[in-house]
Amino acid sequence: MFSLIMAGGMGIRFWPASRASLPKQFLKVIGNRTLLQETVKRVSPLSRGENMYVVVNQAHEMLARKQLAGHDTQILAEPLSRNTAGCIGLAALHMRRRDKDMPIVILPADHHIADDEKFRRSLLHAAELAKSGCIVTLGVMPTRPETGYGYIKTGAGRHPATGEPVYAVERFVEKPDLETAIDYLADESYVWNSGIFAATAKTILSEIECLLPDLYSRLEEIDRAIDTPDYESVLASVYPNLESISIDHGVMERTVTPMYVLQADFDWSDVGSWQSLYDLRSNFHDENGNLFHGDSIALESKNNFLYSAGGRTISLLGVDDLIVVDTQDTVFVARIDRSQDLRKMVSRLMDEGRSDLC
Amino acid sequence: MFSLIMAGGMGIRFWPASRASLPKQFLKVIGNRTLLQETVKRVSPLSRGENMYVVVNQAHEMLARKQLAGHDTQILAEPLSRNTAGCIGLAALHMRRRDKDMPIVILPADHHIADDEKFRRSLLHAAELAKSGCIVTLGVMPTRPETGYGYIKTGAGRHPATGEPVYAVERFVEKPDLETAIDYLADESYVWNSGIFAATAKTILSEIECLLPDLYSRLEEIDRAIDTPDYESVLASVYPNLESISIDHGVMERTVTPMYVLQADFDWSDVGSWQSLYDLRSNFHDENGNLFHGDSIALESKNNFLYSAGGRTISLLGVDDLIVVDTQDTVFVARIDRSQDLRKMVSRLMDEGRSDLC
Repeated sequence: MFSLIMAGGMGIRFWPASRASLPKQFLKVIGNRTLLQETVKRVSPLSRGENMYVVVNQAHEMLARKQLAGHDTQILAEPLSRNTAGCIGLAALHMRRRDKDMPIVILPADHHIADDEKFRRSLLHAAELAKSGCIVTLGVMPTRPETGYGYIKTGAGRHPATGEPVYAVERFVEKPDLETAIDYLADESYVWNSGIFAATAKTILSEIECLLPDLYSRLEEIDRAIDTPDYESVLASVYPNLESISIDHGVMERTVTPMYVLQADFDWSDVGSWQSLYDLRSNFHDENGNLFHGDSIALESKNNFLYSAGGRTISLLGVDDLIVVDTQDTVFVARIDRSQDLRKMVSRLMDEGRSDLC
Repeated sequence: MFSLIMAGGMGIRFWPASRASLPKQFLKVIGNRTLLQETVKRVSPLSRGENMYVVVNQAHEMLARKQLAGHDTQILAEPLSRNTAGCIGLAALHMRRRDKDMPIVILPADHHIADDEKFRRSLLHAAELAKSGCIVTLGVMPTRPETGYGYIKTGAGRHPATGEPVYAVERFVEKPDLETAIDYLADESYVWNSGIFAATAKTILSEIECLLPDLYSRLEEIDRAIDTPDYESVLASVYPNLESISIDHGVMERTVTPMYVLQADFDWSDVGSWQSLYDLRSNFHDENGNLFHGDSIALESKNNFLYSAGGRTISLLGVDDLIVVDTQDTVFVARIDRSQDLRKMVSRLMDEGRSDLC
């Protein structure tokens, strides 16, 4: 099967450890490998070499090549970010030329998955079902009333080709408020939208053609330049004009083609904030709920996350519920439950002419 | 007059900005000069050159000489700290040899005084009164129910030589609890003990001889070596055996000789903690009560003190009432009302073998 690892994000969700120049997928937030390296390693037994495509922003191409040296992958560089519809469309062009009916498993480079074996079994199953031309997403059984994820409402279904019983997508649901999330948790028909799915290049591109025709026509321009000397210049001139829309909003939520959901039984997290990383690593909290990354000390302090990436010691005295991040050029302190609001902080720094810190 | 500036403290009250290697008096916590430089500059119009003695720990002698280059002072180095009785006794030996009846104004190197002119007028007055052989302390009129200072209970008095009405010391009072401090604030006979006083070398040394005879006899050993080639070696062997006691406990609180208090009307602070520095600088708080030292930013955060001494930017999001200190090798975050408990933090670091950070 093909695999498509989306590593083009420019996120600042782990600011100041993550920067425009060093997004989250390139950080070692868990263990000794970066999230990108973990993802590539996780998928490699199913799909590698010329079949594994990693899409990155051109600004990070050297960084990605360095991190993936020794891994056998193909790297596609976007001139700039145009959300997931553009990224997936671009990669699908390359794959369609090689095998339009081979299933592609599509996944973000910056998620955490605890059980690689279970994960691969789910991917394999999704790819198998996707061969017939449908889109198959992975839904994760909720374990808490999470308000930071989108949900999928599932219904009874039967696979059109194999006839086996599978869940059908009834509808996609935006991030809920807490009350609604509690209802979803009690209702087994709601699963977390992992953003991981499988489909063939033919299916993806025909959905884009049907639902995002303007985007498709520009992708066709790029397609005509593939394997010609003009590829880079065409990409550079056309790509900025692609509509910037997510595959979820642009295709998944609009298509009338039946879609299916595999209920995944592996531990999954989008590692979307300092808070979620703190929660994810609960096994490593000390007896006062403090989590340490690097050399640090917490005295009479509870439920803090001390993240030292600048080689300095962080010391806390008498404080609770904080995220403290130390990097080479900045120190960041916030209530950890405000870690969804990092964008505000970064915007303020940009306003003050401190793009060097962003 | 002589002046004696006590700069031998090893304090960690501004840890981690202050260290064993860089105590508070050598820091620029207010303005562009260190507290020591401010103190020397403040006293210089009254007493300078061979009449101004600065006592430092040998460990900081080079640092002190560097900071006082261009200032005309005499530096005396203690082999180690033996509290204020030892420090004052040592300096008084040197001054007694030159003029036993010339008044000495004695003051810590690490206090903040807002009005230098008023301060010098008080010192001048104290020195004048001290010429007759009495001890004259400066008491500061309380402006708040401070629990971090010692107090002096004053009574009516008349100067023995000049006959002018002056306040007499009735007794010294230890740091009070809040309730008592509120009573003191309402009672005009209580003043803050500034630790600043005037007396002649003859008076000081005869008080030590009378009240701390063992200390005095060791000082005499040192005295016999002054101006001989043996001075350094005698000092090194005798000084460690001096009783370590403050001049307040050893002499002031025990003497039966009448003592006098001048009520000082200048703004004074011992700058004894991050909290007190934060309070002292209230004119510089932003509209949310945040105080900045160095390049920093506070978003949706109130009443924080951001002290950047490591050249990095401190950023806060959604936190209140914190002290955040950034230095070359460490980041410290505490509730600012815990800043009296720094010793705990430093002890813990020592226990963990991190003397490099202390």
